[in-house]
Amino acid sequence: MNAIKWNKDSVIILDQRRLPLDEVYNTYRNYYDIVNSIKEMEIRGAPAIGIAAAMGIALAAKSIRENNINDFRADMNEICGLFASARPTANNLFWAIKRMKKIINSVKDINEMRKMLENEAVKMYSEDIETNKKIGRNGSRFLSDGDIVMTHCNAGSLATAGYGTALGVIRAAIEEGKKIEVFACETRPYLQGARLTAWELQKDKIPVTLITDNMSGHFMKEGVIRKVIVGADRIASNGDTANKIGTYMHSVAAKTNNIPFYVAAPLSTIDTSLASGEGIDIEERSIDEVVYIRSEQIAPEGISVRHPAFDVTPAEFISAIITEKGVIENPAGKGVKELF
Amino acid sequence: MNAIKWNKDSVIILDQRRLPLDEVYNTYRNYYDIVNSIKEMEIRGAPAIGIAAAMGIALAAKSIRENNINDFRADMNEICGLFASARPTANNLFWAIKRMKKIINSVKDINEMRKMLENEAVKMYSEDIETNKKIGRNGSRFLSDGDIVMTHCNAGSLATAGYGTALGVIRAAIEEGKKIEVFACETRPYLQGARLTAWELQKDKIPVTLITDNMSGHFMKEGVIRKVIVGADRIASNGDTANKIGTYMHSVAAKTNNIPFYVAAPLSTIDTSLASGEGIDIEERSIDEVVYIRSEQIAPEGISVRHPAFDVTPAEFISAIITEKGVIENPAGKGVKELF
Repeated sequence: MNAIKWNKDSVIILDQRRLPLDEVYNTYRNYYDIVNSIKEMEIRGAPAIGIAAAMGIALAAKSIRENNINDFRADMNEICGLFASARPTANNLFWAIKRMKKIINSVKDINEMRKMLENEAVKMYSEDIETNKKIGRNGSRFLSDGDIVMTHCNAGSLATAGYGTALGVIRAAIEEGKKIEVFACETRPYLQGARLTAWELQKDKIPVTLITDNMSGHFMKEGVIRKVIVGADRIASNGDTANKIGTYMHSVAAKTNNIPFYVAAPLSTIDTSLASGEGIDIEERSIDEVVYIRSEQIAPEGISVRHPAFDVTPAEFISAIITEKGVIENPAGKGVKELF
Repeated sequence: MNAIKWNKDSVIILDQRRLPLDEVYNTYRNYYDIVNSIKEMEIRGAPAIGIAAAMGIALAAKSIRENNINDFRADMNEICGLFASARPTANNLFWAIKRMKKIINSVKDINEMRKMLENEAVKMYSEDIETNKKIGRNGSRFLSDGDIVMTHCNAGSLATAGYGTALGVIRAAIEEGKKIEVFACETRPYLQGARLTAWELQKDKIPVTLITDNMSGHFMKEGVIRKVIVGADRIASNGDTANKIGTYMHSVAAKTNNIPFYVAAPLSTIDTSLASGEGIDIEERSIDEVVYIRSEQIAPEGISVRHPAFDVTPAEFISAIITEKGVIENPAGKGVKELF
């Protein structure tokens, strides 16, 4: 199972909107289909959408029939802008586009650029799997044999090129022989936990129990959940972390119950241009994602709805930020600078 | 709109499972239909299920064709047991049954008992509306003009004979001329907030915005939500409060953000036999209520699921318990004894 794969002149994307009921892979040859795929959350997860954008940009380079390098660059930069506007919160998207732009704005031969963009996208994909394995190795020591570990949203294979960030740490601990059980929060409104994390872990035969988001505190207080580990969409210099809506509440409940709360993410998630989480742009998505669950309408017609897709967890609620380069324990006060 | 109504030889119940899409009232002539109505959450809300049980017991007394007072009493006590086993957490159910049992086990004439049970059930209904209006008057001073007040689940007209407990306080504040806006948490898994609170407030033209449960902390941190008010299913002597799953997490987020967290409930919710919340029996409901939203399956087949329907908020997270008899501010440490 791969969330995304490069396939010569096309990109194959697992349609995550149809999980867990159907496992459907779509093949795209046009870059704008990849833009839509990101916007409409066919593919999601901060690292995965970075890779999708890179592959989309590589596809675009192949399809643009332009012989003048300046015009070609102008077109490519415009397309990079389309990808950048697909979703605002995940840093990895902008990080990936930046890597691609570096090639676009330096290489002078169009055919060479096409080849280099393809190579860069494919490299990002394989780097991401390696990165996640390193994150797993760096983080596995925080999980103990017999732990029940809670996670929110999906920071697994489906959110990355493979292995996962938060779920990567769980996988690494299990590979080391530890017995780990996962509590997956369903993650309203888009249900990434119920639909994706539950599906992915069940497929890998990792014991998983589904709960609604509002149960996490209860199971922490009862001593059932022992650790929390989540991914991240953007981490500010001071360690404040934007992640899927609901993460902040889990972190507060964890703090109150003296339960460690870990963030696992690649360095590409860290936005050193931001001093704190206050500057993070929080995407507000369609209210239909709250009011409808597939075909079922769950609220009255015409109701007012808010739908921030992310929230910011202050560094003080985070026990450690686990990256491929190392771990920052108790980031509050010291931030993430020692990683750079 | 009435959640429940006595109608001579029948009880009319609004089918809350079909809200907000359909407003359907069912008429029941058999007590066991009322037992099922409580079990299957056609009617729900601690005060409302107490009244439903009382009305069901009154119906049963009318239908039992038994001339011997001892046999009649035995039958009636058995039926009371059926109602008591319908749902375990709400104290009001047991309180109402106790009131009915007092008549069953003291009155000696069967016909007189029938009449008295009917009168008692009808009295409980009208008392409940009065009680809620008193709760509203006692609590309205905590809400200020311009407040955005968050609530969880439905502690409104639909959860009571009318007016509501938590929503009763909001209604009272509005009747005093204050401008109040409500944030309603959808309340997974059963969606009482999205389906019932949103519907009830929209019908009464009280401004309401729907959010998912995991957004409450975010909107507290952002300064949007200024107060929280919820109902209760059972309150222990020390003030620990069982209420719909998710309440505990909201209380923790409120405490962390210095936002007042109020519980509004009638005295019949208080269980003086319990020293603390640890003794409260938490109902575990069907996993299908988590995995299916009406016809839509949202998680993989065969997944393990937990579904506690309630949690316990420790008194230390509660700013005040508002009852018809008075208010206990900062119940932690002092408990609810001064109300009795």
